[in-house]
Amino acid sequence: MAVNLQAPETLLPVAGVRLASVDAGIRYKNRNDLLLIELEQGSHTVAVFTRNAFCAAPVHVCRSHLQNGSPRYLLVNSGNANAGTGDLGMQAARECCEQLAELGECWAEQVLPFSTGVIGMQLPVEKITAALPEALAKLDENGWLEASRTIMTTDTVAKAISRQVEVFGETVTITGIAKGAGMIHPNMATMLAYVATDALIEKDILQRVLNEVVEETFNCITVDGDTSTNDSLVVMATGSSGVYVGSEGLPAFQQALREVCLYLAQAIVRDGEGATKFISIDVQGAATRVEARAVGNTVALSPLVKTALFASDPNWGRILAAVGRSPVEALDVSLITIWLGETLLIEKGEPAATYREELGAAETKRDEIAIRIDLGRGEASATTWTCDFSYDYVKINAEYRS
Amino acid sequence: MAVNLQAPETLLPVAGVRLASVDAGIRYKNRNDLLLIELEQGSHTVAVFTRNAFCAAPVHVCRSHLQNGSPRYLLVNSGNANAGTGDLGMQAARECCEQLAELGECWAEQVLPFSTGVIGMQLPVEKITAALPEALAKLDENGWLEASRTIMTTDTVAKAISRQVEVFGETVTITGIAKGAGMIHPNMATMLAYVATDALIEKDILQRVLNEVVEETFNCITVDGDTSTNDSLVVMATGSSGVYVGSEGLPAFQQALREVCLYLAQAIVRDGEGATKFISIDVQGAATRVEARAVGNTVALSPLVKTALFASDPNWGRILAAVGRSPVEALDVSLITIWLGETLLIEKGEPAATYREELGAAETKRDEIAIRIDLGRGEASATTWTCDFSYDYVKINAEYRS
Repeated sequence: MAVNLQAPETLLPVAGVRLASVDAGIRYKNRNDLLLIELEQGSHTVAVFTRNAFCAAPVHVCRSHLQNGSPRYLLVNSGNANAGTGDLGMQAARECCEQLAELGECWAEQVLPFSTGVIGMQLPVEKITAALPEALAKLDENGWLEASRTIMTTDTVAKAISRQVEVFGETVTITGIAKGAGMIHPNMATMLAYVATDALIEKDILQRVLNEVVEETFNCITVDGDTSTNDSLVVMATGSSGVYVGSEGLPAFQQALREVCLYLAQAIVRDGEGATKFISIDVQGAATRVEARAVGNTVALSPLVKTALFASDPNWGRILAAVGRSPVEALDVSLITIWLGETLLIEKGEPAATYREELGAAETKRDEIAIRIDLGRGEASATTWTCDFSYDYVKINAEYRS
Repeated sequence: MAVNLQAPETLLPVAGVRLASVDAGIRYKNRNDLLLIELEQGSHTVAVFTRNAFCAAPVHVCRSHLQNGSPRYLLVNSGNANAGTGDLGMQAARECCEQLAELGECWAEQVLPFSTGVIGMQLPVEKITAALPEALAKLDENGWLEASRTIMTTDTVAKAISRQVEVFGETVTITGIAKGAGMIHPNMATMLAYVATDALIEKDILQRVLNEVVEETFNCITVDGDTSTNDSLVVMATGSSGVYVGSEGLPAFQQALREVCLYLAQAIVRDGEGATKFISIDVQGAATRVEARAVGNTVALSPLVKTALFASDPNWGRILAAVGRSPVEALDVSLITIWLGETLLIEKGEPAATYREELGAAETKRDEIAIRIDLGRGEASATTWTCDFSYDYVKINAEYRS
């Protein structure tokens, strides 16, 4: 079902990172649902999390643990989100960290817990802790590909990518995996992403790079406007390559990290629940980037636009109506120009004289559709990536728990 | 398909108002698609319109005509929205008004044009003007019921209601009709509503009453967040009953008008495209009404909440996640309490100890579902009415033009 997306066949190991996937029997039958990631001592880990006020227990624990220590382990389960679980959920997340710390010989604060799956059910702590010895025994540098499958929930395709970049003639590797298919919206969604590199990079620089990269990648995607309680993006730098990324090597490194994050972010949209089309919405000529984002999001989230594109129907009136209701002060329609792919739809607020239904239909028939909107009121721009809204979106989300 | 909604069998005529429905052959086959409403001289007409920046040609013309004269005729077509039609669309709307003015012996400024249907196609002016003589000849005080069917587009049930109210022992009649089934959102949507009364009431008072009533009725409904280019709500007071509604009679009159508008607004949600559930979201304990609205709308528009309720799935985690991402500053989760019907879900941010899945399932099985959210941070409240999101929503909106 995913739009032009295939799982990778190989991934590059990252020196200093070992992974293990095991079947802890949390919810799914006959598949791995527990991922353990081990980081070499001295690794730097930075992260961004959901801004949802109701964030899940593991997110609270991660935030606290990241302030107090350098993570040695990440423990990720699929099938249960440990969200909306109150104090018991907090205890459950901490208990998993403590058990792993004991077995792995580190402090509990050096374990970051993550959960994804159904909200509002208590985490089966015993099933998880019972699986830890097997997970620790299986840790392997080559565990990435399996890891990308372990964290899947409603995903139909595993999402992962590796990139290498030269820094002063030496090679740095970046490998990342992600999951998420619905509840995807700017500022993190039901999305987990783990990106590791063997570069040697200072922690505050890594955090700054992550903030910049996320703004252009994960924060530009939306499937249904629902942000999740659990979203987390973690970037880990082990330094094991010995290649120091200082200010001069930074642009190349940041560009490679951006490519990895862009691939993963777009992969999530391509595998959006029920998606049959991958849609890019470029808004330009805005007064501010915030404004460009607001217009892009309004169009991207319009159920009428999304259902029309599902039907390959060039019903551009719906795009126009969505732009018109965007939360932008004093929007002057007579300055707005809109294209569907290469086809001009609206020119300075008027229907384009050159538009013909066949041209629009040819654009909407594609499985990758580009909408470009020029607001004609400034220099700022932003891109939003989304997918269409199909019968299967309803089916998947109406039946998810049954 | 509509949730607990039936078309009325009779409607009360309103002295001073005559209506005619005819088949102008605009788009649909073998049904009326053109409604003419005639108002007695001296009637007062007030209206509120869509706030969409891309508003349709007839909305522009209506706004201008309402400033310049007292309407004698309203001309409403279904099947074509005359939106996104540029200068030609403006000419088309004006041309219809001019032709009707000539036949009806009034000024063009005394005609209000309305259109609903597909966006972006030019209005077939000749078909409309050709049908005007027949419409004028058919004008009848008893044309309300037929009128409620003429303005339908994707509606499955005609929406109309009559109320009578005593003002100082004398009877005032209010009859209203409405259409709209998708693109329904606060501040007007693809919604047309016409409410007439024979009360004698001053125009500025009528406008103030309308503004207050719309805030508690039509502006509290949402189907898919898409506001339309054409939404219009018109209230006409002919004064033909001779019953003067001054300050003392106003509360009773306003209450009756509110009941009519509330019925029509909720009827639109009950007949929301593909709706199988009618959902009320009460937000209380908010710091401001704007904040209460923001939370209500976020929950009401969440595709994940809407699809879960379609499936009668008490997946309350999705309600919680939607509340958590509402655009409210410094939302304190530990103050929030949420009920589903009579069942307590979340108490002060924690899962309620009394909650059991059977209780939640019993609530979501109903075809009328109430969600109550107490933010615990103030005294303001607001209610939002919406419907669920079903396969049929996608079907209707993917196939609308084909």
